Amino acid sequence: MFIDRVELEPDELPKKWYNILPDLPEPLPKPKDPGDGSKIKFMEEVSIPECWRQEFTEDRFVDIPEELRELYIHAGRPRPLYRAIRLERALGLEKVKIFYKREDLSPTGSHKVNTALAQAYYAEKAGIDTLVTETGAGQWGTALSYAARLNGLNAVVFWVRSVYNWKRERRTFMKLYGAKVYASPSKITEAGKKGLERGEKEGSLGLAISEGLEYASKMENAAYALGSVLNHVLLHQTIIGLEAKKQFEKIDMYPDVIIACLGGGSNFGGISLPFMMDVLRGDKEIRFIAAQSMAAPNLIEGIYDYDYGDVAEYTPLMKMYTLGHKKRMPPIKADGLRYHAAAPIISLLRHHGYIEAKAYPIDEKEIFRAAKLFVETEGWLPAPESSYAIRAAIDTAIEYERKGEEKIILMNISGHGFLDLYAYRKVLFTK
Amino acid sequence: MFIDRVELEPDELPKKWYNILPDLPEPLPKPKDPGDGSKIKFMEEVSIPECWRQEFTEDRFVDIPEELRELYIHAGRPRPLYRAIRLERALGLEKVKIFYKREDLSPTGSHKVNTALAQAYYAEKAGIDTLVTETGAGQWGTALSYAARLNGLNAVVFWVRSVYNWKRERRTFMKLYGAKVYASPSKITEAGKKGLERGEKEGSLGLAISEGLEYASKMENAAYALGSVLNHVLLHQTIIGLEAKKQFEKIDMYPDVIIACLGGGSNFGGISLPFMMDVLRGDKEIRFIAAQSMAAPNLIEGIYDYDYGDVAEYTPLMKMYTLGHKKRMPPIKADGLRYHAAAPIISLLRHHGYIEAKAYPIDEKEIFRAAKLFVETEGWLPAPESSYAIRAAIDTAIEYERKGEEKIILMNISGHGFLDLYAYRKVLFTK
Repeated sequence: MFIDRVELEPDELPKKWYNILPDLPEPLPKPKDPGDGSKIKFMEEVSIPECWRQEFTEDRFVDIPEELRELYIHAGRPRPLYRAIRLERALGLEKVKIFYKREDLSPTGSHKVNTALAQAYYAEKAGIDTLVTETGAGQWGTALSYAARLNGLNAVVFWVRSVYNWKRERRTFMKLYGAKVYASPSKITEAGKKGLERGEKEGSLGLAISEGLEYASKMENAAYALGSVLNHVLLHQTIIGLEAKKQFEKIDMYPDVIIACLGGGSNFGGISLPFMMDVLRGDKEIRFIAAQSMAAPNLIEGIYDYDYGDVAEYTPLMKMYTLGHKKRMPPIKADGLRYHAAAPIISLLRHHGYIEAKAYPIDEKEIFRAAKLFVETEGWLPAPESSYAIRAAIDTAIEYERKGEEKIILMNISGHGFLDLYAYRKVLFTK
Repeated sequence: MFIDRVELEPDELPKKWYNILPDLPEPLPKPKDPGDGSKIKFMEEVSIPECWRQEFTEDRFVDIPEELRELYIHAGRPRPLYRAIRLERALGLEKVKIFYKREDLSPTGSHKVNTALAQAYYAEKAGIDTLVTETGAGQWGTALSYAARLNGLNAVVFWVRSVYNWKRERRTFMKLYGAKVYASPSKITEAGKKGLERGEKEGSLGLAISEGLEYASKMENAAYALGSVLNHVLLHQTIIGLEAKKQFEKIDMYPDVIIACLGGGSNFGGISLPFMMDVLRGDKEIRFIAAQSMAAPNLIEGIYDYDYGDVAEYTPLMKMYTLGHKKRMPPIKADGLRYHAAAPIISLLRHHGYIEAKAYPIDEKEIFRAAKLFVETEGWLPAPESSYAIRAAIDTAIEYERKGEEKIILMNISGHGFLDLYAYRKVLFTK
């Protein structure tokens, strides 16, 4: 019998996250404050204390607290690694094998739960009772709402109004977890009111961040939670790659190529960094490929320089591949990939040549066609964002097959598409 | 560390289904044909041959073919059994434990995949190239579309028009699997045309069955697939209960109460029958509780008599608890529970006093409130149908707790609610 799935037992869940900071080819450039240092102080004050500490730790491995491991297990971790044998057959592959990691099995639909649970756990231990955040596509807002509820905390989500308006059912989902969800710009913050006065009716991620930061800073026992870009977020996400490494060990294989989509970089970092460790040590050679949208090709068209994380310039400056923090990016269905910059860790590794990037056209037709082939063969419904990884994996597999090279490709299915069927319909089935 | 999840390894997947026919307290009454026997002959001709054979087999255990076991494993089986420790805490339970089986992890969102894969597998082996079916809520149509695609077959789905019209995204899902989906009544069958002439614009499950049967019978190499009620469907679904039994053995426990929602009876039968075996043999005592809607309380207000399976009287007569095959049932959000009769096997067991039933009001407020509590505590989003089981499990747990009785309750989460958030919003969040 051919079993196309590699499982880990619940008690095989990794006990530590991997922190790449001490292994980077050069020290990660520190955040900078263009003025008097007040932005960094402000960020520290609204952050969850343990997350702020983890942001700068040089410990190579960071313990995952036992109670948090229980929460991970409850949320379905470890998640299976699948061999895409049916997709391989459809592509006529004989030399190339494709594997995929199943982050789509998450309770709220994406890998975002991995850091949401960690942040909510540390917040609760620190006596914080409310977590505030922004959300664009909505995956991060849902994950944080879930994690807050399971840790007995309140969640407040500022959601970019243009997305808030049409994703009604994802809003319902957040409300089921008891979250307060505001369309941004709102009238409950000064930043929101000013945005409305300027006529910014549709909102933006930058403005939503500003509203959330202001809201959290004025509230007792509240903290602001971020879902991507920062070091501690990528740290928490390494649970994905650490599990995948154990799973490959079980079948005595090792990937030659690792592919994930990349917006800010949290799912890409999550699956890649534990393998990157082996590469940085000179033990292995792996191609890392970031699948991006031409709407936000930060690793390709961006410059490697200091920039803000938000439009409103509330955050400190971070050294990143950036398109510019005021860059206007056209809307796409894979809204989670639409961010102006890549995480500092990812950017540094890109700068040193460890990461390739590929960007796909804004019409997303080739993306959704790849997703449809995945649905038809493997049967699971991927998120639009994850479908960029599928597209890149298919293209890469075919190239190797043509050259007659035996390769093992690993891709990350970062989320499911049950709440994105509208996008599938619009791209594939209507003229 | 407290692990609230019991897993089975892929190779621990059961190798046989359990067939309850030889263990029933009396022989199951045979289907009857009111006329010349042509209805039974017609059913046999449009059925998948192996399924028709299984419908009447007296073998206590039926081998699951190895290739089909591979498909089950690919689809994520065995599925975890969870202890609802967080729900228990919220209810203040100290004496009563609640467990739940996770059929919501299915690729298309429900337990229906268990029989869909089996039927498509046998159809392919018999040289059939097209499977035809009806669907009401849409879960069965999606599961069959999935199973057909993974077995290289075509699927044709006749979907009750009133539901087809508003569940656009579930239709997109079926189309992604390559299914042809027709709103019923359609213009492509005689039955459909007649229905339209009679002014039946909204359609009904009965008419959709008639269209599908006619369509399949006129097509070369086509067969009709049914998603509930019949013996072979319940046989395939016993994989749920067989896994759960193994999982309880692993933790050295055994359920005192088993609860599932019941429309036609396939998920109820699936989780119950393997445990019912122990009860019928006198080895164990278990309360089996079917959670129903007052819109279709077939086990409560129905009579135990011969009736048709469809409105149009195409099927043979079967002895069932029935509200009458022409009964008009008000629409509810848990549309999968709206069927006039319960499966013959379930009906016979009910007749002999082995199954209790409880029906909940048509407004479904208490159902969705129970679902919300489950979401807030366990974090997983259940289907509206499954939420009937959650409601009944909560009520039953509280009763035992008040009486100070130590009990173990097992409930089946038959599907997820990602495509039902609209229903959540309508019932919980709008006036």
